[in-house]
Amino acid sequence: MTSADKFDRAALEQLVTKRFFYAPSFQIYGGVAGLYDFGPSGSALLNNIISLWRNHFVLEEEMLEVDTSIMTTYDVLKTSGHVDKFADFMCKDLKNGEIFRADHVIEAVLEARLQGDKEAKAAKAGKSAEEIAAEAAEAAAAKADKKKKKKKGTVVAVELADDVRQSYEECLAQIDNFSGEELAAIMKKFDIRSPESGNELSEPKEFNLMFESLIGPTGQLKGFLRPETAQGQFLNFKKLLEFNNDKMPFASAQVGRSFRNEISPRSGLLRVREFTMAEIEHYVDPENKDHPKFEDVKDVKLTLLPKSVQMSGKTDTVEMTIGDAVAQGVVDNQTLGYFIARIYLFLEKIGIKKDRLRFRQHMDNEMAHYACDCWDAEIHTSYGWIECVGCADRSAYDLTVHSKRTGEKLVVREQLPEPRTIECWQVEINKKTFGPKYKKEAKAVEEALMTLCDEKYAELAKNLEANGVGSVLVNGQDVEVGKDNVTIKRGTVTEHVREYTPNVIEPSFGIGRILYSLLEHSWWVREDDEARNVLSFPAVVAPFKCCLLPLSGNAAFEPFVRKYSRELRQAGVSLRTDDSKASIGRRYARNDELGIPFAITIDFETVENGTVTLRERDSTNQIRDSFENILKTLVNAA
Amino acid sequence: MTSADKFDRAALEQLVTKRFFYAPSFQIYGGVAGLYDFGPSGSALLNNIISLWRNHFVLEEEMLEVDTSIMTTYDVLKTSGHVDKFADFMCKDLKNGEIFRADHVIEAVLEARLQGDKEAKAAKAGKSAEEIAAEAAEAAAAKADKKKKKKKGTVVAVELADDVRQSYEECLAQIDNFSGEELAAIMKKFDIRSPESGNELSEPKEFNLMFESLIGPTGQLKGFLRPETAQGQFLNFKKLLEFNNDKMPFASAQVGRSFRNEISPRSGLLRVREFTMAEIEHYVDPENKDHPKFEDVKDVKLTLLPKSVQMSGKTDTVEMTIGDAVAQGVVDNQTLGYFIARIYLFLEKIGIKKDRLRFRQHMDNEMAHYACDCWDAEIHTSYGWIECVGCADRSAYDLTVHSKRTGEKLVVREQLPEPRTIECWQVEINKKTFGPKYKKEAKAVEEALMTLCDEKYAELAKNLEANGVGSVLVNGQDVEVGKDNVTIKRGTVTEHVREYTPNVIEPSFGIGRILYSLLEHSWWVREDDEARNVLSFPAVVAPFKCCLLPLSGNAAFEPFVRKYSRELRQAGVSLRTDDSKASIGRRYARNDELGIPFAITIDFETVENGTVTLRERDSTNQIRDSFENILKTLVNAA
Repeated sequence: MTSADKFDRAALEQLVTKRFFYAPSFQIYGGVAGLYDFGPSGSALLNNIISLWRNHFVLEEEMLEVDTSIMTTYDVLKTSGHVDKFADFMCKDLKNGEIFRADHVIEAVLEARLQGDKEAKAAKAGKSAEEIAAEAAEAAAAKADKKKKKKKGTVVAVELADDVRQSYEECLAQIDNFSGEELAAIMKKFDIRSPESGNELSEPKEFNLMFESLIGPTGQLKGFLRPETAQGQFLNFKKLLEFNNDKMPFASAQVGRSFRNEISPRSGLLRVREFTMAEIEHYVDPENKDHPKFEDVKDVKLTLLPKSVQMSGKTDTVEMTIGDAVAQGVVDNQTLGYFIARIYLFLEKIGIKKDRLRFRQHMDNEMAHYACDCWDAEIHTSYGWIECVGCADRSAYDLTVHSKRTGEKLVVREQLPEPRTIECWQVEINKKTFGPKYKKEAKAVEEALMTLCDEKYAELAKNLEANGVGSVLVNGQDVEVGKDNVTIKRGTVTEHVREYTPNVIEPSFGIGRILYSLLEHSWWVREDDEARNVLSFPAVVAPFKCCLLPLSGNAAFEPFVRKYSRELRQAGVSLRTDDSKASIGRRYARNDELGIPFAITIDFETVENGTVTLRERDSTNQIRDSFENILKTLVNAA
Repeated sequence: MTSADKFDRAALEQLVTKRFFYAPSFQIYGGVAGLYDFGPSGSALLNNIISLWRNHFVLEEEMLEVDTSIMTTYDVLKTSGHVDKFADFMCKDLKNGEIFRADHVIEAVLEARLQGDKEAKAAKAGKSAEEIAAEAAEAAAAKADKKKKKKKGTVVAVELADDVRQSYEECLAQIDNFSGEELAAIMKKFDIRSPESGNELSEPKEFNLMFESLIGPTGQLKGFLRPETAQGQFLNFKKLLEFNNDKMPFASAQVGRSFRNEISPRSGLLRVREFTMAEIEHYVDPENKDHPKFEDVKDVKLTLLPKSVQMSGKTDTVEMTIGDAVAQGVVDNQTLGYFIARIYLFLEKIGIKKDRLRFRQHMDNEMAHYACDCWDAEIHTSYGWIECVGCADRSAYDLTVHSKRTGEKLVVREQLPEPRTIECWQVEINKKTFGPKYKKEAKAVEEALMTLCDEKYAELAKNLEANGVGSVLVNGQDVEVGKDNVTIKRGTVTEHVREYTPNVIEPSFGIGRILYSLLEHSWWVREDDEARNVLSFPAVVAPFKCCLLPLSGNAAFEPFVRKYSRELRQAGVSLRTDDSKASIGRRYARNDELGIPFAITIDFETVENGTVTLRERDSTNQIRDSFENILKTLVNAA
């Protein structure tokens, strides 16, 4: 029913407002960018998605759900890396003070210039500007890395020299990968100005995206609103392992609000300052990432966009079962694969269209230095492909850094049946050359070298042997290490009790983004009636499952409304009674816009013989039957 | 089973930690006062209470649930009064810097001196200090206004002169009612020092309890973390009324996190900096506060502590049906009465003991100036009577102030069948005398005079007529008004369309406080086994409904664990599998501490014939039956 090309975003936005799915917060005060309130329909949809998430993940796997503080102390987020690294670069219009994200403004300006180049060339070739714009839009939608709509630059048809065009394209391809200095250099080199006013912009300045506050009356204890729910889970690892009777593997989970003080939020629910996340931290033995239930999902077929394809500059996806993907090493391990498949099944269940869902692997330069593999579930919308769920192997990073900082052991201890000798990567620092070479950075470089995952050790060892040098990521920068500074080799150790820091596989869901994508995928217009929008949510997540409509305000209907609504509620069927004076037709249209799958109408025949009509939203088919039978139908429908 | 006198708080606190109901946030970093994380058992209990709340209130009444931003702009909270009034007074130990809440420290010191006086007198009379302490504790527990345990002052047996004793007692009786200046004067007069160090304290300084932050990168937009979920609901009033097809009355509802930057949080979950609230804003016609379903609850019998009793210095409660309470004017109106009864039924359903639950009416000086009546559901715990739910008639205050500030009409419009003449209170300001008398305050006094509720108008009119003067509360202070400044009289106006600002009845639930009280009410110890704590939660809120226990690690049990757990989940029975190596007895004890009502044990007979044992938590009775029959029993049990 829904297809991307017929989609009319303005119509959906109008519906979203009219039926109060969501709206800007404090709208009567003028609103604030990036903050939204969910109305009754949006909030019910949100709650139903969360409830299904809980059933699908938490209850199914007996995950340990927690509910931790939003207000988080400086120390915790300093250790996790957020104080230093959770930042974007911003620049300011030097005349009117408008603020932009540096990478976004570069993209907007260069894309506009490339577009102007195309139009100028097309004009020469005799094509119309509209034809060209349509082609460009198509090309952009097909592009892999356009995840969000940025502010558009003004397009002026000016032809570019070939080398200039190429340097723009190269810059855009790496836009997520630049440091502040590099962004500044690019802005200078390409004379990037405000795409709105044409004014000059300030140099990019780092801006931490966490909301800051002070805890208590003395002003001495700095706190932040958490940027993710994960840290609260890691900090409770020891208690959770104990709660789980020290058994591994296990997972914790949390649903809750997180905050990012975005520089310049746009794109509705897709880039907001306050949002609901649902995160799972699955703790697994780093030596055995098999999953006991992998067998259950191995035949699930997925659309994958592996990093190897992207790195060759392409965006062709491959269809493959998760079983094959893991067997062929496309996906790193069974546990990661298991969750990717479970995420797919969840999104399908709530109503995301299969053909507009893909899993994109992060390229090496996109991943945090500690991550071994990461896949995003991307959903296609009118804004392009949107990252809605991340599924990363965070290795032992978080537990390791918190443990180091607090001195609290965050490990699993396993009595070995008999002592064993294991082979592992061993790192030897050459103290004599290390300190002098890295000076103040020595500690950070050493820490980075100590917490690599096996794949990275193997790569580094290979490079040291082959070239005498290799590199390691330290605070987001590649740092060179040479074989005179460090030796990396396989060695053996003997263990009696095995003590290890578990690795963490983290599926992390942005519920607001999923909800928005679902709205787009569920929206369509009845062919026979242009004005009639429908939202075809599956019953299981629809804001209300059933609408109860008395034919008119006639008093004879009242006892039936009361009786039936009580019985529907008791049977767990969520309900909206619409006894307004609008015609039945108008009320059906209203229900369609709210995505309510079923409507029960009470009329004079009901008063006579207890039968009602049941109308199904998508087909508009109606049947008449006793209320009791209709109730059974509804209960079975979800 | 549970009784207040056998209660052992230390034992419960130990259990809460051991079974990870909750624990201080960031505990491995040392923790922060007033911030707690809920573990798997606490979080499941919390979710189940919320889920029951949603069924009992939101679904039952088709309330319009919303989910609004936590981050709230300065303007909104300036208008609502929180920027100016949501504050406590704090003072500082001048030597060691420790911070106290001024009212709490005065209470602690004066109570300690009064206690010392009693002990000194008793010593004279030959009683032991222990006897006296026990008597005092009993008296304190019976007292109405002791809602939270404050830091105790050190008790020294010193006799007080009668007039001194009396002045202390008078001060304590009004402790919630003092301004900053008054608190400062009292501290000076009574030489109040730190109850911990004996050091001098600084003068009380006002401290706003909202966490402050900055929105966006410019630092120009000040925001606060919301102190209640209510404002987000009021701001959306217009959209909600439209969603409800302009029909009145209706209610909005919200469950979510709120924040108070407490000066010095103590008493575990009872006074925290971050907490989950569930709030209802029921919008009602000020001319008709009857409730259509009042009939359904009128026979609900409640324990009431009306303001008249408290004002006579007593704490004797009265037992009365809500029908009688409204009929006799003890409770102001049907809608308020309806919610009080519904709150009672909800608390009873989740497991709060009836005999430890009462409804206390606010005294006039406790209420906000706009409130007409307010009742707190207080639950008795080892900390005394704790306010867990407030149920206030907020009149038209909130909608009025937001409307005035934004210019957005927040009213209900009703076409009248024919024009009508209504009688109402009319306020005439005498501009000539008003400005000169109140100067800068004139606007605030006028606003206060314009937004009184009918009862307050009647009282003021009576006072003006009888004495020529009356008073009105302005920013928490009584301000005198005379009959030469203002005339208040009944008058008539003719209306065609009736336009009115609805009044708001607000039931507001502190979920954490309810959860803690429930823990106390549910806790007991098996008589035959001192070490065995039990938490007797009703099945409907128990963290997990059923525990699945294979007798041992024998591989023969595994397929049964898998099969039964799947079937239990599919039937909606929440589940914890305990396949640890501990003995069945130890595992039963663990379940009792988690408050899991049922345990299913899989043993060798199961493998033979598919029967299992079902154990009930409170009685420890066991039955053996086929799994299918047991499953039916469980599904029916909640």
